[in-house]
Amino acid sequence: MVQSQTRAVAQDSPLAERFRQTRALTEALAAPLSESDATIQSMEDASPAKWHLAHTTWFWETFLLRDHVADYELHDERWPFLFNSYYEADGERHARGRRGMITRPDVDEVLGWRRAVTDAMAPLVEDPSLAPLIALGIAHEQQHQELLLTDIKHALFQNPLGPAMFPSPSPLVGEGRAPSGAQGEGPEEKTAAQAAAGGSDPSPNPLPQGEGALQGTEHPGGIAAVGHDGSGFAFDCEGPRHRVLLEPFALADTLVTNAEWDAFIADGGYRSAALWLSDGWAWVQDHGIGAPLYWRDGDHFTLAGWQPRDPNAPVTHISYYEADAFASWAGMRLPTEFEWEAIARGQHADEAPAHDPAAGNQLDHPDLWAGPVQPTGSDGLFGDCWQFTRSAYLPYPRFQPAAGAVGEYNGKFMSGQFVLKGASCATARGHSRASYRNFFYPHQRWQFTGLRLAKDI
Amino acid sequence: MVQSQTRAVAQDSPLAERFRQTRALTEALAAPLSESDATIQSMEDASPAKWHLAHTTWFWETFLLRDHVADYELHDERWPFLFNSYYEADGERHARGRRGMITRPDVDEVLGWRRAVTDAMAPLVEDPSLAPLIALGIAHEQQHQELLLTDIKHALFQNPLGPAMFPSPSPLVGEGRAPSGAQGEGPEEKTAAQAAAGGSDPSPNPLPQGEGALQGTEHPGGIAAVGHDGSGFAFDCEGPRHRVLLEPFALADTLVTNAEWDAFIADGGYRSAALWLSDGWAWVQDHGIGAPLYWRDGDHFTLAGWQPRDPNAPVTHISYYEADAFASWAGMRLPTEFEWEAIARGQHADEAPAHDPAAGNQLDHPDLWAGPVQPTGSDGLFGDCWQFTRSAYLPYPRFQPAAGAVGEYNGKFMSGQFVLKGASCATARGHSRASYRNFFYPHQRWQFTGLRLAKDI
Amino acid sequence: MVQSQTRAVAQDSPLAERFRQTRALTEALAAPLSESDATIQSMEDASPAKWHLAHTTWFWETFLLRDHVADYELHDERWPFLFNSYYEADGERHARGRRGMITRPDVDEVLGWRRAVTDAMAPLVEDPSLAPLIALGIAHEQQHQELLLTDIKHALFQNPLGPAMFPSPSPLVGEGRAPSGAQGEGPEEKTAAQAAAGGSDPSPNPLPQGEGALQGTEHPGGIAAVGHDGSGFAFDCEGPRHRVLLEPFALADTLVTNAEWDAFIADGGYRSAALWLSDGWAWVQDHGIGAPLYWRDGDHFTLAGWQPRDPNAPVTHISYYEADAFASWAGMRLPTEFEWEAIARGQHADEAPAHDPAAGNQLDHPDLWAGPVQPTGSDGLFGDCWQFTRSAYLPYPRFQPAAGAVGEYNGKFMSGQFVLKGASCATARGHSRASYRNFFYPHQRWQFTGLRLAKDI
Amino acid sequence: MVQSQTRAVAQDSPLAERFRQTRALTEALAAPLSESDATIQSMEDASPAKWHLAHTTWFWETFLLRDHVADYELHDERWPFLFNSYYEADGERHARGRRGMITRPDVDEVLGWRRAVTDAMAPLVEDPSLAPLIALGIAHEQQHQELLLTDIKHALFQNPLGPAMFPSPSPLVGEGRAPSGAQGEGPEEKTAAQAAAGGSDPSPNPLPQGEGALQGTEHPGGIAAVGHDGSGFAFDCEGPRHRVLLEPFALADTLVTNAEWDAFIADGGYRSAALWLSDGWAWVQDHGIGAPLYWRDGDHFTLAGWQPRDPNAPVTHISYYEADAFASWAGMRLPTEFEWEAIARGQHADEAPAHDPAAGNQLDHPDLWAGPVQPTGSDGLFGDCWQFTRSAYLPYPRFQPAAGAVGEYNGKFMSGQFVLKGASCATARGHSRASYRNFFYPHQRWQFTGLRLAKDI
Repeated sequence: MVQSQTRAVAQDSPLAERFRQTRALTEALAAPLSESDATIQSMEDASPAKWHLAHTTWFWETFLLRDHVADYELHDERWPFLFNSYYEADGERHARGRRGMITRPDVDEVLGWRRAVTDAMAPLVEDPSLAPLIALGIAHEQQHQELLLTDIKHALFQNPLGPAMFPSPSPLVGEGRAPSGAQGEGPEEKTAAQAAAGGSDPSPNPLPQGEGALQGTEHPGGIAAVGHDGSGFAFDCEGPRHRVLLEPFALADTLVTNAEWDAFIADGGYRSAALWLSDGWAWVQDHGIGAPLYWRDGDHFTLAGWQPRDPNAPVTHISYYEADAFASWAGMRLPTEFEWEAIARGQHADEAPAHDPAAGNQLDHPDLWAGPVQPTGSDGLFGDCWQFTRSAYLPYPRFQPAAGAVGEYNGKFMSGQFVLKGASCATARGHSRASYRNFFYPHQRWQFTGLRLAKDI
Repeated sequence: MVQSQTRAVAQDSPLAERFRQTRALTEALAAPLSESDATIQSMEDASPAKWHLAHTTWFWETFLLRDHVADYELHDERWPFLFNSYYEADGERHARGRRGMITRPDVDEVLGWRRAVTDAMAPLVEDPSLAPLIALGIAHEQQHQELLLTDIKHALFQNPLGPAMFPSPSPLVGEGRAPSGAQGEGPEEKTAAQAAAGGSDPSPNPLPQGEGALQGTEHPGGIAAVGHDGSGFAFDCEGPRHRVLLEPFALADTLVTNAEWDAFIADGGYRSAALWLSDGWAWVQDHGIGAPLYWRDGDHFTLAGWQPRDPNAPVTHISYYEADAFASWAGMRLPTEFEWEAIARGQHADEAPAHDPAAGNQLDHPDLWAGPVQPTGSDGLFGDCWQFTRSAYLPYPRFQPAAGAVGEYNGKFMSGQFVLKGASCATARGHSRASYRNFFYPHQRWQFTGLRLAKDI
Repeated sequence: MVQSQTRAVAQDSPLAERFRQTRALTEALAAPLSESDATIQSMEDASPAKWHLAHTTWFWETFLLRDHVADYELHDERWPFLFNSYYEADGERHARGRRGMITRPDVDEVLGWRRAVTDAMAPLVEDPSLAPLIALGIAHEQQHQELLLTDIKHALFQNPLGPAMFPSPSPLVGEGRAPSGAQGEGPEEKTAAQAAAGGSDPSPNPLPQGEGALQGTEHPGGIAAVGHDGSGFAFDCEGPRHRVLLEPFALADTLVTNAEWDAFIADGGYRSAALWLSDGWAWVQDHGIGAPLYWRDGDHFTLAGWQPRDPNAPVTHISYYEADAFASWAGMRLPTEFEWEAIARGQHADEAPAHDPAAGNQLDHPDLWAGPVQPTGSDGLFGDCWQFTRSAYLPYPRFQPAAGAVGEYNGKFMSGQFVLKGASCATARGHSRASYRNFFYPHQRWQFTGLRLAKDI
Repeated sequence: MVQSQTRAVAQDSPLAERFRQTRALTEALAAPLSESDATIQSMEDASPAKWHLAHTTWFWETFLLRDHVADYELHDERWPFLFNSYYEADGERHARGRRGMITRPDVDEVLGWRRAVTDAMAPLVEDPSLAPLIALGIAHEQQHQELLLTDIKHALFQNPLGPAMFPSPSPLVGEGRAPSGAQGEGPEEKTAAQAAAGGSDPSPNPLPQGEGALQGTEHPGGIAAVGHDGSGFAFDCEGPRHRVLLEPFALADTLVTNAEWDAFIADGGYRSAALWLSDGWAWVQDHGIGAPLYWRDGDHFTLAGWQPRDPNAPVTHISYYEADAFASWAGMRLPTEFEWEAIARGQHADEAPAHDPAAGNQLDHPDLWAGPVQPTGSDGLFGDCWQFTRSAYLPYPRFQPAAGAVGEYNGKFMSGQFVLKGASCATARGHSRASYRNFFYPHQRWQFTGLRLAKDI
């Protein structure tokens, strides 16, 4: 496996260390936010930053402290009702859309709860019998770290002043991307668009519609073993490991870029019904969609406010509908989740190395950033953007949800959503893996979503 | 005129003094709020407290400083767009519903703007030529003081914890109600319900449906002069003064109480279609209405959190539809705005004193409160609750809106709304008058709205 | 009173004759419709033609036959549920929007019901004790005749083929307009627009914004007696007769025309927020309104399909919002219902004749038409279009709804609607009168609504 | 292959014969409808019967006559706009919901069009070069036959009178079900519920939650060849044929019955959030779902009006959400589309016969019916109800949509929907096959949808 040279916490650190670093990272991400930044909710899909701070704490207090510490007393008996996302009863969905109305407890009170729970957890994180539950809690909190960033981005975007959560980026110094040695060299730098156009100039139309060529990695097809193999933590939906049959295909080595997306727009991509799924076309019409979320002229909104777009950076904040339409326009298609996983595992050729899930542009502690999290272009399959697959998010053969409330976690979402693979610039480094299955509805695009093309061969 | 013994700023104070006290009161009302309390917006009808702090400042900066001070530079050029409620263009209505997304500038920045503008206004408030505009600005800011209180009440109500903005009330010491000497004495204390029931016991059904008797003030009918008479400030919609013909009627001396409303509920008031306007019945069905806003069992939500209801206090937070249905149930009707005004002016009898618009339970500086603002029962026609009339909010004969942006103020709302008269416990003392026309849509009830019955005689 | 020379049934015909002619006219209006034309419902505000045929029959069967004929057996016990618009209970409003789903009973069955009920009514229409109820039933059925025409117009308009219910008009031969002698003569023919422009050429901008002059009838102001005087039939909401105070005003002699409306559009009327009520401007934005309903280029949709617009004909199918905005643009205003009624009664001058409510372009039996009902321009205050007033539809002093189900008829609609006066080309001649109060919500415009300007003098 | 003894047109009849019989069947199905029955549209998902009559005719006229007959003149140039479901442009979706507004042309005119087109097709149906397109047209028209029945069922259901399209059923005489010899014998008659309960009495709780046993056909797992094999007609989405890996499983021999569904309801199935997908639970809450569509007490609405439910008949008109929740409650799961197909093809055992796609309770000419189409319980995998699978409707490997407008047919719907296999009582016999992929959204249930359980072994 290619080694990642990251300063993030290694996945093989002691669990106690990973627990503390995870708690600290969540707080570091929320630190630049004002009391009101942390309170508001911009849409039902998103939650307030304070809610993320609190909900992740509720998880530890409920499933670890309450359930495994004798005579544990809740920090505040009234707060579980506010910060529990699991409780299913009449009106719960309404409550979800009203999370932004909870001004009290305030952020300081929630941070106090965080400290108390983190401290109370100290003995438990050393208890091997609780390790699986603690690994789940860490993974859960990492998911909310990513949501915290994407949710607050959406919230700040609502303000016509375009406020920045983090300072504007200084020039990248090669950090936060790994392995750095591979950047900017050789043919890998060419985009799929350039390859398709047969030249090095991405403009004006790097990916002419029709027969597309694709600079990518080929897989000869055959039986692949997919799903979590049982070593280390994984969510229940990643298993059971099982075999699938693949047909020969190629997967692009790079993500589709902003420049390529500009070409799609210039070619009338958003006005050509034939490129779109029926539901996608209705979505385009009903919402007047004509560009990725956060685009305005040559700029886009980032966690550092409005910034010029880098044409060579991966396009992000696109929906499944847009990804699918782009692929049709480019004469290619989206990969399946299994095709993607087979390449990530290095199954396409003898001696092929697996991709390092901890490499690439992923989330580290803010102290390590040269700029706010934003896709910049990585080698490898992990980092920058979650990548849409054409696979619906459905149970694997013999899938059984975990028992109890924790089992409500993944299985109940298995209708109407698509699987995304990889990791994004907002994914805590160490969180993802080849078997990871992220999932969203086809119209959602406030996550750092992107597109890696595939093709039958 | 009956004298009010209030510690509030007299309406005849120098304008400069009234300006400063108004500015100070707004800030005092917002002082108990946290940064996030002041930021959130609970519904499109309501605005954040911070928005009220800012919008009232925008008014002074725009119509006074910008327009009347040479070379005045805006405190921040970007803020008028955020805090201007007048600008009419595509998408403005969406913006209205998104006021709760503005976390920056924060409250401290807005308070800094307030101070700067208040200071810069110092020379202008002494300029007699600007007095009409300054009086308008004061009236405008007073309106937003009331909205600030009703809007934040609605926002805090969204929180299942029921947070309190102000401490729970200590026993009333007779303050905040004027003239205090009239309290608790004689037949005036009897409610209309008691009168109707022919006894002193309000329960179980104080206002039996059908032929209702009414303890009130009679007017013999005839020509009445209504509308603002030109002395002192008034909004454009209060004039021109004109004559109307009145038929003989009586107006109740007291507001309908919580106990009377309980009787209406117990008698199936919310389930009897025949009592309701067609639109009102649809509203009851569509929203599952069965009680005034903020009621829950025997409690109601107040600015001091959840509190037991006082059965003898005026009912409040009712819609026009509810007020009209109650009146039908009681065998009476709502007064017209002109009937109400004629009584308020003392036109019903020779030597009859006018009601003091500055008397009763109205808004003073919080230092003067024994408890949070809440209807408690007043003598006189002003205070406790705004009182629905059956008059639609329409232009008076020969009404002409004021020219310019200020003219957009009232005239453009003249469809679909009803006039309310009086003043509420959240109305800045000194703000209202006999000609005052408050107006709301018939389904709205987050204001301190109440009901005073009338009857043909 | 000016005499109308109409071939319609005189209002003073025997009631039995008027009953039979009313029943026949309803059927004649529906005769050109196919089974499916008569079944569909284009929106919740409208009802199917078959429903009108049935509902008017239900009225007679319920309030006359069932209540006044011993042992009367319902034609079909299940049909009252389908065709009763009064029954108020859970779900009734949904049912209203689903009237177009009732394919059975079919039109022939409903016509059979009509015949049976009409026949069974024969003895009752001769019974003087039932005369008031029969007069009410006739008025009720006449209202539904008008709705039948406006509802089917809206339904046929939904079809891209633009089907015609009636043949295209042949040249008018002067019928259906009374008194015909007044047509085309003298200064009365000049529109208000022409007068305002100071010339005879209506284009390009016949009504420049600002100070408008108005060719109309002046009233000196004073006390006017309004409301139904008790002779002949009237709806309960038209009384009690009472006095109102009027200020001096003038009321235009003619309705605003299509050409004048074209000038309003050309002058940016639909894009100038300052001309509009706040609710009206929101309606314009939300629905993309830019012209009266049924306009398309130089044509408009009529009951004879798509036809060229006559620039000199009165504009119709406008909302209150549009009427109010036009009046603002023209520098004038809408009249109040009382101003309109005072002119209609000839109260403005000694010896002034009252306007004949049965004159003008109103609905006769189709055999009398030169073309489908459509405003063409009439003298007098009645006919062509219902005319918006600025009066909200509210109870008159001492108004009491009639007892029983019949009392649900008018009073329960007294919120949110505006009064219209006059009569339209689809109003059964003889149905209207000076005290008549038609009412609609300010956004509705599928009726033959128009505009007669007024002005303070 | 098991032979079907059906009187329906054999799939190997000459194409010309199949064309004519298909045209005749469509007309026979619409024959019992009145002009208005055939015109109305009860919801956006459904279309009027007349629209189906016209749209299927538009297909032949457009893709056969217009494209393959020199100088062919359209029957009416304006009708393609009305009856084309393919045209994608602004406003098309609105038009879809307004199909019920097209009263003209009427049914007779559309039937005239049908005759003219059927006649004009005569030479083309003999042309071998057009055979693939004609086979597509027949399949297309058969799909609309099924929709015609399910759409009109939904429309008639809107009428509180519950009108019947067909007479009430007389006792079944064994027709319409094949092979009849297998009925009522041996253990196959036992339901899965009975097996699970370990007894023969289905009540009160035939399928206790938890470990379920399943009376079914076992498959040992392995590589299966699925998708259309190229012989005979198939839709593009049924191919390409490809291999999939199956794990060992069992598929129930019978469909879930009404009695079993009653047990699910009695056990609180609709009130147990844990049984439901997240989206499904929201759907249950938002729409107050508590039973299959068309159920009322012990009755259900059928094409013969309201009828008592047969407890032993297959449950129908359920959504994917309901099917999935039931399977969870029963301790089983839904099959994948590939598992279902493998059993249908007899791949589970050597010598196992394939299921006859033309057997079972499917749609024949009405002359052959003993009662209206309704699930009654069949042997075999085809007939009675379409059966939900847990497979999302997605492209098979190397799927390429057909070129041109015909290619818009299936591929564009590949998001958000689930595959259903089999055939229903409303599916034209001969229309379905093992590779057939029907698809609907998980909330839709107006089709004859049902449930066949599966289980890992």
